[in-house]
Amino acid sequence: MPELDLESIIARLQWSAEGLIPAVVQDAHTQQVLMVAWMNAEALRRTVQTGETYFWSRSRNELWHKGATSGNTQRVQGIWVDCDADVLLVSVTPAGPACHTGAVSCFFRTLEEFGE
Amino acid sequence: MPELDLESIIARLQWSAEGLIPAVVQDAHTQQVLMVAWMNAEALRRTVQTGETYFWSRSRNELWHKGATSGNTQRVQGIWVDCDADVLLVSVTPAGPACHTGAVSCFFRTLEEFGE
Repeated sequence: MPELDLESIIARLQWSAEGLIPAVVQDAHTQQVLMVAWMNAEALRRTVQTGETYFWSRSRNELWHKGATSGNTQRVQGIWVDCDADVLLVSVTPAGPACHTGAVSCFFRTLEEFGE
Repeated sequence: MPELDLESIIARLQWSAEGLIPAVVQDAHTQQVLMVAWMNAEALRRTVQTGETYFWSRSRNELWHKGATSGNTQRVQGIWVDCDADVLLVSVTPAGPACHTGAVSCFFRTLEEFGE
């Protein structure tokens, strides 16, 4: 990714009261939506600087390099900002399944299947 | 959409402290991610019952039938639930642009463009 004035971007993004922004992760090739996770400013910095996705885990309360344990990292192809600047869309090439269940995408159940 | 035990589904979804769940809206045909908005239980009920998207507007603090004013409704083709049951993915056929700016998708700027 080209040089960015990342700190000025971070200052202008609309972070939640907890200092987080939701990030939709989409497969750059298949266009499949893989997962939604949260980033804090540091997660966004590391994502831009390393070219791999980092998130903030709200359950573990810690920075999380996606794939650090599983090997299923996500190579960033591009990042988009929505009109309100309160959601990010991250286009990636995944090294493996996005979901901790082993599914390619975390969205592996329809509402109907979830209801069964 | 087939009959669902929607109230039992609503009871099992992981709503935020404010009673909301983020919904990623994706074009069923192009696979483009169009927008992310929030649903409360009533927005989800109406979305399922009418086959068009409803959201909860956090800024206006009211239920919002997408396209009620602009005509740019979204016909629901399917709804998916993520592994943690705290995000929905809604596949739609849009009647027009998703974004209030007139853009097809709310994600019309890259992070670089947002930084300019």
